Amino acid sequence: MPRIDAVYRLHVPAVQAGHRARLLAVEQSIEMPPEAVGDRRVLDEVLACVEDVEPQADGTSLARLRLACETVGDDAGQLMNMLFGNCSLQPDVELVDVEVPASLASAFGGPNLGIEGLRQLTGATARPLTCTALKPIGSTVDRLTALCDTFAQSGIDVIKDDHGWANQRSAPFAERVPACQQAVREADGATGRRTLYAPSLCGTQVQMQRQIELARGHGVAAFLIAPLVCGVATFNALKREHPDVAFIAHPALGGGRIAPSALLGKLLRLFGADAVIFPNHGGRFTYPAETCQAIALGNRAPWHGLRPSLPVPAGGMSVERVPELKREYGADSMLLIGGSLLVARERLAERSRAFVEAVAAGGAAA
Amino acid sequence: MPRIDAVYRLHVPAVQAGHRARLLAVEQSIEMPPEAVGDRRVLDEVLACVEDVEPQADGTSLARLRLACETVGDDAGQLMNMLFGNCSLQPDVELVDVEVPASLASAFGGPNLGIEGLRQLTGATARPLTCTALKPIGSTVDRLTALCDTFAQSGIDVIKDDHGWANQRSAPFAERVPACQQAVREADGATGRRTLYAPSLCGTQVQMQRQIELARGHGVAAFLIAPLVCGVATFNALKREHPDVAFIAHPALGGGRIAPSALLGKLLRLFGADAVIFPNHGGRFTYPAETCQAIALGNRAPWHGLRPSLPVPAGGMSVERVPELKREYGADSMLLIGGSLLVARERLAERSRAFVEAVAAGGAAA
Repeated sequence: MPRIDAVYRLHVPAVQAGHRARLLAVEQSIEMPPEAVGDRRVLDEVLACVEDVEPQADGTSLARLRLACETVGDDAGQLMNMLFGNCSLQPDVELVDVEVPASLASAFGGPNLGIEGLRQLTGATARPLTCTALKPIGSTVDRLTALCDTFAQSGIDVIKDDHGWANQRSAPFAERVPACQQAVREADGATGRRTLYAPSLCGTQVQMQRQIELARGHGVAAFLIAPLVCGVATFNALKREHPDVAFIAHPALGGGRIAPSALLGKLLRLFGADAVIFPNHGGRFTYPAETCQAIALGNRAPWHGLRPSLPVPAGGMSVERVPELKREYGADSMLLIGGSLLVARERLAERSRAFVEAVAAGGAAA
Repeated sequence: MPRIDAVYRLHVPAVQAGHRARLLAVEQSIEMPPEAVGDRRVLDEVLACVEDVEPQADGTSLARLRLACETVGDDAGQLMNMLFGNCSLQPDVELVDVEVPASLASAFGGPNLGIEGLRQLTGATARPLTCTALKPIGSTVDRLTALCDTFAQSGIDVIKDDHGWANQRSAPFAERVPACQQAVREADGATGRRTLYAPSLCGTQVQMQRQIELARGHGVAAFLIAPLVCGVATFNALKREHPDVAFIAHPALGGGRIAPSALLGKLLRLFGADAVIFPNHGGRFTYPAETCQAIALGNRAPWHGLRPSLPVPAGGMSVERVPELKREYGADSMLLIGGSLLVARERLAERSRAFVEAVAAGGAAA
């Protein structure tokens, strides 16, 4: 019977780790003392089991649990619930890795388009894609369309809404999105390029469905979404309902005790992220370089035939770091530079072109 | 102009706290260097501002920020995003408190029914309500209806699905819920009581809407929901769409760096929790007693005219602890005992009646 493998780090003395792992297996499955369960099938097939517990050099232990697929079905929220719902409230537990059977990978389905699909949408081949963000929230639609024009004329591949964009009155979705898409299309008409504009989805599934329909009516083919804000079930459902649309996942609210390599590296890909934004080391966030590499690895490694996701190192990146980012993440990545372009102000176009050129340059560029 | 007050604990040396607070204000609003913002209105009205920064005895600092309401609108997910979306990824920041203006409280609306409404639904007056859970997941519908009968005959006020129940094949929602509701109704017919059965909602907003419709057709008036799993926007939307229904909020996935007093005490009430389950001290979880008291305070304190939520201490509680729980949480609470009843096995009815009697007894009971 296929099972979900979950690896947890237990912050307890090694002598207690076996007992703690068994309590965790109960907590994340039947949530009651096994001795009080009368139904043999539940004990055999539903109760999570502890595969092994390994003490680590740092004094923690790694416990490998196997969870029953039948507790999850094909509900992405329920997978999160069974992996980490209750134990998220227990500070001695971290979720460090997850492996799902092929049947579950197939049920969630992974990215609609993946790396190759994003390359086809933008025409970008054999190099990292370039991405920037429409900032700041509170701007008028006119200001945003001017930014779209500058960025698209400069040759940036993907222009996304800042993740703080919702339906604010300064630039409501229904006004902002058609206007930005049109600005990008007009610039593309002049350059002959294909720039992808990705507006930010907000609210509930029903609201997001309406936003997607509206935007698609104007030719929008990609969206920014924060799966940990809207709920992963909503994200996965929208992805399935719109199989020809690309989703760029934002990590907002994603901090906590699920390892970034599991959450951003694997789970967001499983649920359908064509691209995964993550806080790169050396910026405004503190993930170490090896965590960032593990995210990129999870995004791109062969996995039950799921399309790979494009890793998007972000969070305080600059044009000066492009050569380093290219060395670190290779061609199958998307480099996101936001505020660091905008500080150029009247030289924004020049700075944006420098970004594009640095990414396009062979070897150590810029 | 009304603003949202948010208090963050900064884990940085006191001499850096002012600078860190200003960076946080940028991160949680405009997400770009203020010096690069050309629009004066954005700087004046959208950029979050630092009200004060106070060094604490433990070496941390508390920073009070004011966030613009216009960045949030009436979208609960967007409130979480602006309060803690990006800084959830920065381990030196905790969100410890939040205060919203009356306009925002009114927009989200708080509980549909609140404590008084739950008392009316159950007929329970002047004492804590009693609650138990249908466990374990994987059980058959027959087993669950037998539990419903025993619990309802024993006089327990609220019987909720365990939070691991979704749409599992052993007891699909469409079979489980009508059967459990009927079992409860039949027991009520014999006892003359009013027992509330609260099935667990799962999946997306659209799936939950269907579940609510189906269940309401059978007379169900209360639901269990995990707002941090499904997304708070989904939760708030369902609450608004069904103003005569009660929602019991489960804290799954709610661990992290938002203080329980803010998340479980206030935000879940704001979004519509008629009752808030939280991990009580001395059980399987590690919240200290003062944290639990702060949650209960947030649930019940006067707040912009919102109905109070019923605090539900849970997570490994037992009949023996009922007198202590009553002293600690008073009459306006709901005591949830799950697995500790079920270990009685063939004496489940007796144990359930002991629970009910301990809660009903004056003073130190059981």
